[in-house]
Amino acid sequence: MPRKKRRPGGSGRRGEFKVPGFKASGVSCGIKKKRGARDLALIASDVDARVAGVFTRNAVKAAPVLIDMKRVRKGVSRGVVVNSGNANACTGEQGHKDALVVAGLVEKALDAPRSSMMVSSTGVIGVPLEVEKIASAMPALVGALDYEGFEDAAEAMMTTDSFAKTALSRARVGGKTVTIGGVAKGAGMICPDMATMLAFLMTDADISQAALERSLASAVELSFNRIVVDNDTSTNDTVLVFANGVSDCAEIKINTPAYKTFSILMNYVCLKLAHMIVRDGEGATRFVEINVRGAASEAAALKAARTIAESYLVKTALYGGDPNWGRIMAALGRSGVKMKQERVRISLNGVTVVKDGLDAGNEARAARALKAPEIVVRVDLSLGRFSSKVWTSDLTKDYVKINSSYRT
Amino acid sequence: MPRKKRRPGGSGRRGEFKVPGFKASGVSCGIKKKRGARDLALIASDVDARVAGVFTRNAVKAAPVLIDMKRVRKGVSRGVVVNSGNANACTGEQGHKDALVVAGLVEKALDAPRSSMMVSSTGVIGVPLEVEKIASAMPALVGALDYEGFEDAAEAMMTTDSFAKTALSRARVGGKTVTIGGVAKGAGMICPDMATMLAFLMTDADISQAALERSLASAVELSFNRIVVDNDTSTNDTVLVFANGVSDCAEIKINTPAYKTFSILMNYVCLKLAHMIVRDGEGATRFVEINVRGAASEAAALKAARTIAESYLVKTALYGGDPNWGRIMAALGRSGVKMKQERVRISLNGVTVVKDGLDAGNEARAARALKAPEIVVRVDLSLGRFSSKVWTSDLTKDYVKINSSYRT
Repeated sequence: MPRKKRRPGGSGRRGEFKVPGFKASGVSCGIKKKRGARDLALIASDVDARVAGVFTRNAVKAAPVLIDMKRVRKGVSRGVVVNSGNANACTGEQGHKDALVVAGLVEKALDAPRSSMMVSSTGVIGVPLEVEKIASAMPALVGALDYEGFEDAAEAMMTTDSFAKTALSRARVGGKTVTIGGVAKGAGMICPDMATMLAFLMTDADISQAALERSLASAVELSFNRIVVDNDTSTNDTVLVFANGVSDCAEIKINTPAYKTFSILMNYVCLKLAHMIVRDGEGATRFVEINVRGAASEAAALKAARTIAESYLVKTALYGGDPNWGRIMAALGRSGVKMKQERVRISLNGVTVVKDGLDAGNEARAARALKAPEIVVRVDLSLGRFSSKVWTSDLTKDYVKINSSYRT
Repeated sequence: MPRKKRRPGGSGRRGEFKVPGFKASGVSCGIKKKRGARDLALIASDVDARVAGVFTRNAVKAAPVLIDMKRVRKGVSRGVVVNSGNANACTGEQGHKDALVVAGLVEKALDAPRSSMMVSSTGVIGVPLEVEKIASAMPALVGALDYEGFEDAAEAMMTTDSFAKTALSRARVGGKTVTIGGVAKGAGMICPDMATMLAFLMTDADISQAALERSLASAVELSFNRIVVDNDTSTNDTVLVFANGVSDCAEIKINTPAYKTFSILMNYVCLKLAHMIVRDGEGATRFVEINVRGAASEAAALKAARTIAESYLVKTALYGGDPNWGRIMAALGRSGVKMKQERVRISLNGVTVVKDGLDAGNEARAARALKAPEIVVRVDLSLGRFSSKVWTSDLTKDYVKINSSYRT
């Protein structure tokens, strides 16, 4: 299906995206049906890097996810090889062997230690991986490795994404410049079986294993775990961070000023990638922030925000530009969080539509405000001091069209 | 929006639907914008009836729901007055007063005891109820009461329903013929703010309060609580049963053969109405049964079935006739129920698509089977002896179209 390139985002021109000590490449190996489409990516650190990861909570996990979950425990890696077009999920023992073969091919070509490469796949479920195609493309993939190759790698990870997603951030940490860069592909609102979110983060920071893990977990919780596209969790969702230490900064340890700065960079990159994923949702015409405040607990604020973001009826109303606050109230009510109806206040892009739980009489103004492509739904429960944000998109006819069309 | 009348269902010709000792009527009072459209219904028992109810679990409850929840505790009622076109939800204290006034008007006109009438509303949220319109129509409403008036009443409860929903069942209980009849309006996949499910059941059985409550709760759990339309729970969902005892059967008590017969009738009527609601889902083109068996517990079977039924991706695939079993596996995996991937078997209308957790290679046959308007998705977890069924419809472009169009 033809799609226009929207909001290219990312770090801009080729060459601007660099993380010292990391190379990347993206080539075509022929798994994707479209001739010449990039479908094989490699990210490699020049030296051993610390690694941490967050993986899908889906009980049905793709073969590469199971391998990475094991390898990440060692805490050391050289990088990751990624194919798109095939998820290598529900492929049984053969799928597991295939993923190991792919990682081994890269390790051999890079002269890297055994079991040092992570492996990742995204695409159709239940189809055997064509390992021979990946093997044939290996010389080209390794040959193309470049310090400026991240745009190509990001493109090779795409399935139905309409643009490559990259984000970069730098700051002085302990007297040295530290960089974090990330590449991602979209999740959900996505073509058959491809509802996978992949993100790979690279940093030249020297950071302790504990600090790296905590910083990643915290950033993922506030970014990738706060976007709602179609409520489905993929078999392949994976976030990995590699820290190769070539910045020569002093080792970053938990609960230090350097850790705080590093975590700000990490949060920024993860949030930027997460927002790009929402913006690139199939068929989406609106980028929507659901902002719940005044909740009795942080968990309640998040649950309320998520329930609103997951409501078909709220999402179709936003698509139609209809300030239909009754649907938001109904979602709040069924979320199960503590609330007093008569205290609820709701605004849409700054226009109050509900005050003291009742119609505020601003429907015409709210309808005009909803014509914007970016919408903030603010809900104040007026019960406590906790708040939470979730990002989502609208539910459109194109979403249904794209997701109901037969896989080809 | 024009919609064709589909599957009229129900009990057939006017006059066939009769429950001894119950009259009903449906008239136009002008709340609905379409001139002459029925929007006010009355169901009245000739004598005091036992009453039991099940109500929405949404924390935001419409005024009439709060009133009925209180009145149902007395265990005695004369019937229910229902308006469509306005939900009387999020209308504050005035809404509460308005609902009491409506019930009082009917009680006076019928010379029924104070607080003996239930009251119910469905329609737009947040708009004050036009009580004066209901008051003006009261003579016509009461004057039209008729033992054969249930089709009119069912029609007057409709919002975006495309057909009136009625179901009737009779059997010999303790030497007497006992009848249960029910009228309902649809839930979900429904125009702005009208995602309400209402069902009113009438029986001439003489039945103890405890038996009536248990039989209703059990039937609702297996019918109205097993249909998934768009995952939203309305502010107004209400199921009431009235038992007036005019059949002269011996009082039905819990755990007797008569109770079992009565419960079979009750289950039948509730399930028939629930299925009609799914069939009448806005935009729906498929009636889908999700049947999970081999689960380790009944709760697990239900949770797995519900997660599949709630998946946007599964529902769009069914709309497209795509035997995309990867989406079903992914939904199973994220449902959180105990499973062993390698034991899973999935069939679509009898065609096995997954065997031992892997592709069964029947895609072409499965695609042909999915052309049918009724689809059974059968999942066998092969872990235990528990099973559960849930009914849903597909997610279509028309659903989005209907629910995104501005309220007018």
